[in-house]
Amino acid sequence: MQKIMGDASTVVPNYLRGLAAAHPDLIEYDSEHRILVRRAPVAPGKVGLVSGGGSGCEPLHAGYVGLGMLDAACPGEVFSSPVPNAIMAATVRADYGGGVLYIIKNFGGEVMNFGLAAEILRRRGIRIEKVLVDDDASFPPELAARRRGLGATVLVEKIAGAAAEQGRPLDEVAALARRVVARSRTFGVALSPCTHPKTGLRTFDLPDGEYEVGVGIGGDRGHERRPLPSVGEIADVMLERVTVELGLQPGNRVLVLLSGLGSTPAIELYGLFAAVRDRLVTHGAEPVRSLVGDYITSLDSHGALLTVLHADDELLDLWDRPVHTPTLRWGA
Amino acid sequence: MQKIMGDASTVVPNYLRGLAAAHPDLIEYDSEHRILVRRAPVAPGKVGLVSGGGSGCEPLHAGYVGLGMLDAACPGEVFSSPVPNAIMAATVRADYGGGVLYIIKNFGGEVMNFGLAAEILRRRGIRIEKVLVDDDASFPPELAARRRGLGATVLVEKIAGAAAEQGRPLDEVAALARRVVARSRTFGVALSPCTHPKTGLRTFDLPDGEYEVGVGIGGDRGHERRPLPSVGEIADVMLERVTVELGLQPGNRVLVLLSGLGSTPAIELYGLFAAVRDRLVTHGAEPVRSLVGDYITSLDSHGALLTVLHADDELLDLWDRPVHTPTLRWGA
Repeated sequence: MQKIMGDASTVVPNYLRGLAAAHPDLIEYDSEHRILVRRAPVAPGKVGLVSGGGSGCEPLHAGYVGLGMLDAACPGEVFSSPVPNAIMAATVRADYGGGVLYIIKNFGGEVMNFGLAAEILRRRGIRIEKVLVDDDASFPPELAARRRGLGATVLVEKIAGAAAEQGRPLDEVAALARRVVARSRTFGVALSPCTHPKTGLRTFDLPDGEYEVGVGIGGDRGHERRPLPSVGEIADVMLERVTVELGLQPGNRVLVLLSGLGSTPAIELYGLFAAVRDRLVTHGAEPVRSLVGDYITSLDSHGALLTVLHADDELLDLWDRPVHTPTLRWGA
Repeated sequence: MQKIMGDASTVVPNYLRGLAAAHPDLIEYDSEHRILVRRAPVAPGKVGLVSGGGSGCEPLHAGYVGLGMLDAACPGEVFSSPVPNAIMAATVRADYGGGVLYIIKNFGGEVMNFGLAAEILRRRGIRIEKVLVDDDASFPPELAARRRGLGATVLVEKIAGAAAEQGRPLDEVAALARRVVARSRTFGVALSPCTHPKTGLRTFDLPDGEYEVGVGIGGDRGHERRPLPSVGEIADVMLERVTVELGLQPGNRVLVLLSGLGSTPAIELYGLFAAVRDRLVTHGAEPVRSLVGDYITSLDSHGALLTVLHADDELLDLWDRPVHTPTLRWGA
């Protein structure tokens, strides 16, 4: 297996150790509980934000810990949910008296383990709200329960994080997070599978000249396999269900997140972004904010996730507020 | 060929168009000359910084245009130097009366074409200084002329860019740039070749379980092919010549840049960073700044370039100053 790694059991802790060592001003790694915690000072009573999920989707979630975003992240093993104990340790660290918001991607294990942790900790007196992220537009509305949590997770973490930093109460922060989910849709494609570091196996086989349509994160196949078209047609495919589901109208302002899946070079990703943006503009939408790069990935898969948020003044204001994390960093 | 692209001739312009569209506040794309230019206001007489080189090494150089770094970048075709006309157009845009610094990686075509452009424009009255970047530690000192310009290019652009922004004169900015080159060394490894978008061919064949030692950017093979070891031994190999060449002593402060080559997932790259950092600390060096991610690449190659800068107070101060580019962004 062509990977830079040692024993497979060390892949996740080595990543977390490296991430914390590269950003000592922003985050701290608690190796006992395998969680990452923000270092920036916190105002008493600030709502705490916690997220987590299977590793392999870096920089999700550990790369988003810091001022203006998550207070703690709990990464599980590769493609496996964090255990309730890790979630509970992260929650205790993120509880400053104002309650804690869980940002949970719609994967069975995450929903279950965050749910368990919430149940136990609420009995101990910590106020906890949960927001479920299910922005995956590859499933039609009648299969909404199967919609995975994808790129909107990053947007929820940023926007709810900014609201929490402003000192807004838990119910308001949670409502904002839900609004971001409701106004976001994601569609993914993959030109390659990924290789699991434990097994050394590819998660599926894909012949050259074909691609998977409707993938998520976690190395699963999409809904359909098609001949690989040119970049413009890929953009059409990615945008089709996203624009319909959001009901995008001429004049609507949008935030576009185009994430590589882990081994997509920038030269391809920005080329795809140009094609996506052209089509949005032709449709009459106004792309007012853009983020292009590896923001939510699937190990070493080659492909992309397109997330579109139907923005408004409040969401854009929160988006623009300062953020100091390993991955997103802007503002004073 | 598994790439997100259209006709091969559109790959570079689509990338540049996408990059500029994603960062409209920072950069402007001049499609006629195929150059990128900064948008931030410039103080009269500021030294202008220009760099360029074969495409395929994104975000080099276009991703480093903006306040505190480059004033203009001229990307060539994939793995081909920009033509003199593009370099001249970039120079004219970057000339604010204080002269222009060319940051040239030690590749034949770049040296020649930047040299030609400088000759012509000096006759037209533009003051131009050139700095040659040749930080490649994979060639021994007796083959110094063959040392390629690698990761130090990013450090030179950042540090000289900050000095130019302070209003320092051309000779001082050039001297600083040369100091950064002299105090930096880079060593690269690759676990895969890359695939050229024009030919669809891999630049070499590499069996599973082996890796190339001493690669640069541009898809060439390294000096040697070895069985792929664990992450710690890769870190040893990368550090060996770098530390010797820099003469690193206990107590030396270092800036570490660890760049993926285009398809290296973060989970592997940060794991490698953890191993590199452990060894530097054991050696007695003090890693005071770190940058881990895709900062100089080789299309879709899997691998990494390790650059170490022997830092001092002045270089660190300049490193920390504000930078607003698509790729590096910090400070007010």
